[in-house]
Amino acid sequence: MLDAGGLEVLGRQECLALLGAAQIGRIVFTDRALPAVQPVNFVLSGGDIVIRTTAGSKLAAAARGAVVAFEADEFDPRAGTGWSVVVTGQARVVSEAGELQRLRGLPLPVWVPGERGDYIAITPELVSGRRIPARGGSAA
Amino acid sequence: MLDAGGLEVLGRQECLALLGAAQIGRIVFTDRALPAVQPVNFVLSGGDIVIRTTAGSKLAAAARGAVVAFEADEFDPRAGTGWSVVVTGQARVVSEAGELQRLRGLPLPVWVPGERGDYIAITPELVSGRRIPARGGSAA
Repeated sequence: MLDAGGLEVLGRQECLALLGAAQIGRIVFTDRALPAVQPVNFVLSGGDIVIRTTAGSKLAAAARGAVVAFEADEFDPRAGTGWSVVVTGQARVVSEAGELQRLRGLPLPVWVPGERGDYIAITPELVSGRRIPARGGSAA
Repeated sequence: MLDAGGLEVLGRQECLALLGAAQIGRIVFTDRALPAVQPVNFVLSGGDIVIRTTAGSKLAAAARGAVVAFEADEFDPRAGTGWSVVVTGQARVVSEAGELQRLRGLPLPVWVPGERGDYIAITPELVSGRRIPARGGSAA
């Protein structure tokens, strides 16, 4: 199925499979009444999107109980192909000891030196995805 | 200079140079009171970020006069390197005939079949960028 803009509409399971294979996403939130966006490493775990951030960071504060969007994508400019998945859901800072212990065992790499002690989990409510259909073919 | 999270802080000119070399970004806006994000092709022109969208699209409606964020990034998971630039500014749907004619001449590829008659311009007000410092070295 194509949307009004000519993009192939992806189902929820396909969206979650694409997210499961991605490493970098972007969390979209509101910071002092302005739209804000920040790239993050993430991992899917137990159906949640899990990210790490510095304790007390702007992101940790802004995401506390807020509805956020989360986006991941992959594009190949030479081929003119790509996909994008957007999740909307409530974010929470994980504080329960057992859950924290479980999250600390996840394969969630951090590329930047420095402490990243807070875990934020986003439970997907709305999940949508689009793929650029192959050129000259129909995206059945 | 490093920020509190250990990332190198980029200056405005460096941010705009990185944006000028990128092809894909993500526009962040509010849709029915929820955070929304959509990847787009873009080009820098006259200091503005210029994107094309379908006339009457959700994006065109939401971006009309709104303050939006715009993000572009590039990451290399194998090397653990990358950068991200975020611009915040007011978006406008371009309607003046002379400006429209100029924008239609820009090298702004569209990867998806179908009409993309509306042009949205974002004038950067806040510009910020971060780079992951090289491992084991100082990011002077």
